[in-house]
Amino acid sequence: MGAPATLDGWYVYHEFRTVNWNKWNSLNTAGQQSILREWSLFADSQRAIQDARKGSYGQFIISGHKADIMLILMRPTIVELNALKSKMAKTQLFDVTSSVYSYISVVELGGYMAKPGIDVSQDENLQARLKPVMPSHSHVCFYPMNKRRQGEDNWYMQTAESRREFMKAHGMIGRQFAGIVKQIITGSVGLDDWEWGVTLFSDDPLQFKKLVYEMRFDESSARFAEFGPFYVGHQVDNTGLAEWFGA
Amino acid sequence: MGAPATLDGWYVYHEFRTVNWNKWNSLNTAGQQSILREWSLFADSQRAIQDARKGSYGQFIISGHKADIMLILMRPTIVELNALKSKMAKTQLFDVTSSVYSYISVVELGGYMAKPGIDVSQDENLQARLKPVMPSHSHVCFYPMNKRRQGEDNWYMQTAESRREFMKAHGMIGRQFAGIVKQIITGSVGLDDWEWGVTLFSDDPLQFKKLVYEMRFDESSARFAEFGPFYVGHQVDNTGLAEWFGA
Amino acid sequence: MGAPATLDGWYVYHEFRTVNWNKWNSLNTAGQQSILREWSLFADSQRAIQDARKGSYGQFIISGHKADIMLILMRPTIVELNALKSKMAKTQLFDVTSSVYSYISVVELGGYMAKPGIDVSQDENLQARLKPVMPSHSHVCFYPMNKRRQGEDNWYMQTAESRREFMKAHGMIGRQFAGIVKQIITGSVGLDDWEWGVTLFSDDPLQFKKLVYEMRFDESSARFAEFGPFYVGHQVDNTGLAEWFGA
Amino acid sequence: MGAPATLDGWYVYHEFRTVNWNKWNSLNTAGQQSILREWSLFADSQRAIQDARKGSYGQFIISGHKADIMLILMRPTIVELNALKSKMAKTQLFDVTSSVYSYISVVELGGYMAKPGIDVSQDENLQARLKPVMPSHSHVCFYPMNKRRQGEDNWYMQTAESRREFMKAHGMIGRQFAGIVKQIITGSVGLDDWEWGVTLFSDDPLQFKKLVYEMRFDESSARFAEFGPFYVGHQVDNTGLAEWFGA
Amino acid sequence: MGAPATLDGWYVYHEFRTVNWNKWNSLNTAGQQSILREWSLFADSQRAIQDARKGSYGQFIISGHKADIMLILMRPTIVELNALKSKMAKTQLFDVTSSVYSYISVVELGGYMAKPGIDVSQDENLQARLKPVMPSHSHVCFYPMNKRRQGEDNWYMQTAESRREFMKAHGMIGRQFAGIVKQIITGSVGLDDWEWGVTLFSDDPLQFKKLVYEMRFDESSARFAEFGPFYVGHQVDNTGLAEWFGA
Repeated sequence: MGAPATLDGWYVYHEFRTVNWNKWNSLNTAGQQSILREWSLFADSQRAIQDARKGSYGQFIISGHKADIMLILMRPTIVELNALKSKMAKTQLFDVTSSVYSYISVVELGGYMAKPGIDVSQDENLQARLKPVMPSHSHVCFYPMNKRRQGEDNWYMQTAESRREFMKAHGMIGRQFAGIVKQIITGSVGLDDWEWGVTLFSDDPLQFKKLVYEMRFDESSARFAEFGPFYVGHQVDNTGLAEWFGA
Repeated sequence: MGAPATLDGWYVYHEFRTVNWNKWNSLNTAGQQSILREWSLFADSQRAIQDARKGSYGQFIISGHKADIMLILMRPTIVELNALKSKMAKTQLFDVTSSVYSYISVVELGGYMAKPGIDVSQDENLQARLKPVMPSHSHVCFYPMNKRRQGEDNWYMQTAESRREFMKAHGMIGRQFAGIVKQIITGSVGLDDWEWGVTLFSDDPLQFKKLVYEMRFDESSARFAEFGPFYVGHQVDNTGLAEWFGA
Repeated sequence: MGAPATLDGWYVYHEFRTVNWNKWNSLNTAGQQSILREWSLFADSQRAIQDARKGSYGQFIISGHKADIMLILMRPTIVELNALKSKMAKTQLFDVTSSVYSYISVVELGGYMAKPGIDVSQDENLQARLKPVMPSHSHVCFYPMNKRRQGEDNWYMQTAESRREFMKAHGMIGRQFAGIVKQIITGSVGLDDWEWGVTLFSDDPLQFKKLVYEMRFDESSARFAEFGPFYVGHQVDNTGLAEWFGA
Repeated sequence: MGAPATLDGWYVYHEFRTVNWNKWNSLNTAGQQSILREWSLFADSQRAIQDARKGSYGQFIISGHKADIMLILMRPTIVELNALKSKMAKTQLFDVTSSVYSYISVVELGGYMAKPGIDVSQDENLQARLKPVMPSHSHVCFYPMNKRRQGEDNWYMQTAESRREFMKAHGMIGRQFAGIVKQIITGSVGLDDWEWGVTLFSDDPLQFKKLVYEMRFDESSARFAEFGPFYVGHQVDNTGLAEWFGA
Repeated sequence: MGAPATLDGWYVYHEFRTVNWNKWNSLNTAGQQSILREWSLFADSQRAIQDARKGSYGQFIISGHKADIMLILMRPTIVELNALKSKMAKTQLFDVTSSVYSYISVVELGGYMAKPGIDVSQDENLQARLKPVMPSHSHVCFYPMNKRRQGEDNWYMQTAESRREFMKAHGMIGRQFAGIVKQIITGSVGLDDWEWGVTLFSDDPLQFKKLVYEMRFDESSARFAEFGPFYVGHQVDNTGLAEWFGA
């Protein structure tokens, strides 16, 4: 039947890290502040790149034991993201934290969003969505997911017509949360272990629960969705990060 | 069909830790007592916040190798729980223990509990359940769970009517244990890796087994429940914690 | 339908540990003997408690890489088992070994074993089985298991009558091994990650294979049993433990 | 029915490593350059062997936390690959990196590719494919996979005729990407944990996503494919590796 | 229906280890040779036991990251294998390597191999197969497996007649490889986490792939077999081991 067309934007690197508190606590105040000052410079440089529309950057504190910090970095190419991994590895902040999870994907929009005859590379609205500035909402939620291929519940064996119907109903739910929850869908088939990454932004984290719960009753999720780990947290600027570290 | 309405209260952070006994045993008595004295002050501050009804706190010794200590912390916001994670990381107790599991969720009641016309924010009974004081029972049991979505046993594909019937029968079992087992149900869809957390409290841990076993024969569990790890243990005040540590 | 009644006895703590051989080998003979001498005193104190019928104790060498040593400790309460965990953590033996698995459960007999009108607490035979002395057989086998809930093979959706028939056939196999394999069934619903623990004792470890293989062809196992890890080993007294350590 | 015939070429060893950045960062420039200089000599020796058509070699930077570096080494025998593992373990680069994944397989072509009467060992085209020079494309993608054996979706229970039809449709998709994505299929039944390894090469990593997504809608993948972890990255020569390390 | 009868021979301990190369590389040549010389004495003592037909021994280099070295040790009893574990733990070779996997099982032949009236303990052919000398082939393959119990594909719910037919067809494939691949089947029901271990020996490792692939199309594997990890490698004597280590 063939895969539905997609529009693909920037490559995205979600990096999840835990703090080595033994190491952090063993440092004196000057040592701790040196780490955060260096990181602030790095973060500022990333925001400058974002301002220049050549990439995107956000930093977040994650709840629970699975991670302490999540970084989201976007770039036009995989090579740039790989270079950033090495560059960050040399910062003092990375020296007192450890990588525990990551996700590699690319911003993805449904191909139907490009109306016939349109030049995607010139469409401002599409370009803004394919190369997004990091949303400024206070809270974040990330999870990867698959479409299931199991017995009767095999997404990839449904007709194109059925899949369109399912996705339409699914999209209706998303629209109920317009203005409340902003979502960035990234495709990762062939790039990482799940098929999509979902990053949600909201000023009220309870809306993540309400949105995902509502969708679970939708047939496209109920029958066909498989979910990976869920991460929730709040966004921090340099001051917020320093405050969280208590330095 | 749409998700059933929920009432949502405080955010909950279950933190599970194992003791680094090599490190603990290498300390002299003064060093060990310093750790516990510092932690007592932290625990007391949490109980003061609980007394002021601005949060909730409990500490527990867990059986077996999966964890030694479980903390339960509740707050109105995710940001406060994230701040607590960093604050606790700086205590000496956290320095001699390691995080091995956690759970992030929010106290959840069925929406049907809010009778039509009621103002939930003014209903004392509902508020007491949404922002609960830590039960004082001697024993605790925690486990996360999902509603299954598998072939014919797909909870989210059942009609609202069916689900209501299933939950009614399920609730009947809970009621048989009224006064014996107290339960706090917390929702974690979109927040953590399972859909709900269940925290049970009782003065007799055998009742955890009896309750969960009875429920397993109920169709809503038999066909639709998937369970994560189970943790059982006993509640300790500062003295009990020190006694357990043998300091 | 309701859960079948159970008789519940002592709580059981299976503790599995691996030896840190680098650490052990770095000690001189005096250091090694000091470790084993201290442990012998602990083990003797446990056997004294067993002699007083206030608990039960056994120590075993486990085959393969999953564990080197298994301890089985039984007590009337969870709190006592938690206290033992802390107490053992302070021994030198625990300092040169690491916990790699454990199991928390409670000795469980079918409720049908209490004949109508009987006072279980006064029935010597039942009491001996609910609060068992550690069998003295030379070999041991432990594994946890669930009853499956999968499509047509859902144990908890079978009628009480069917389940009784299944268990009767299952019990017949056990009886063929009477006098050859002794089994202690412990329930762990609500207490640990599987529903039951099975501990087998025999003077011939080949009988573990024969018994479990025979049962696998029985419908109650073939269709409904799910198994966790299997551990096999041999029982050692203090001398046997020291010999195994080569000290 | 019998397994379809295969043509088998060189054995392949995919090695995935993460950098121990703490260790790397603690070295001075001279120390870092010494590591890379030594590795360059090793890499050059491997390329010389490739030039002599006695093996194959490539080195890649991998995205995300799962790995930093992937090496692909091919040789006529398992013994040679085992010798290379030991040889590389003595390099300084291996000393500052850790093995986190690997894959052992053998280049595999469909037996139908050898036309009747042909002498495979003398067919230049087949020999070039069985003993491939490492493609020079800028990007790489690797994943292992199985053919599913689950209920109705059991690949190995399909008739030979059905399987041929499925594979033909599957091959058509591959052909759409001819000149854009080059693939090396390696068989690992009996050699590693999955049945095949797939290594894709392209100058545009987005084509990996497009190709794998397209194939997922093909019945042979939709119903029968199970996928392991996915790794994506870019190819580097000695200079590129040094630049990535920032040395 | 009942389990088919089996003939059971020696207990088998497969031990898989990885080399701690940091530690190995930090030793000077004298230190490395001391390790290998000590191990050679141990290996020779095992071969002497094999010559006396009181056990069996082989050592192998394993491909890829899952393990570097596999040892296979056979003995009449579990107690002897447990003693060997402790004995080997005191060698210098074990000090620079770590245990990463193991398998505990017992050599198993189908009961039908003992013709009626035969005295198994006096049958030389059967004894040679139940207490095998380690095959001298250059390559080895090991994997554990289960017979599946899943919906319609439940091996243990097939009639004895069906199972016999399946195994007969299965055996025919094995016979096609007679003289090319030698296999030792070991039973592990009740002893380790899978039901059987399969150890294959051949002078051509490609034959492992051909044999296992051919069997996968046989209904007894296609519908009923579940496989654990696969390990492949080559056999080494003391000289070969030293050469591999490069000492």
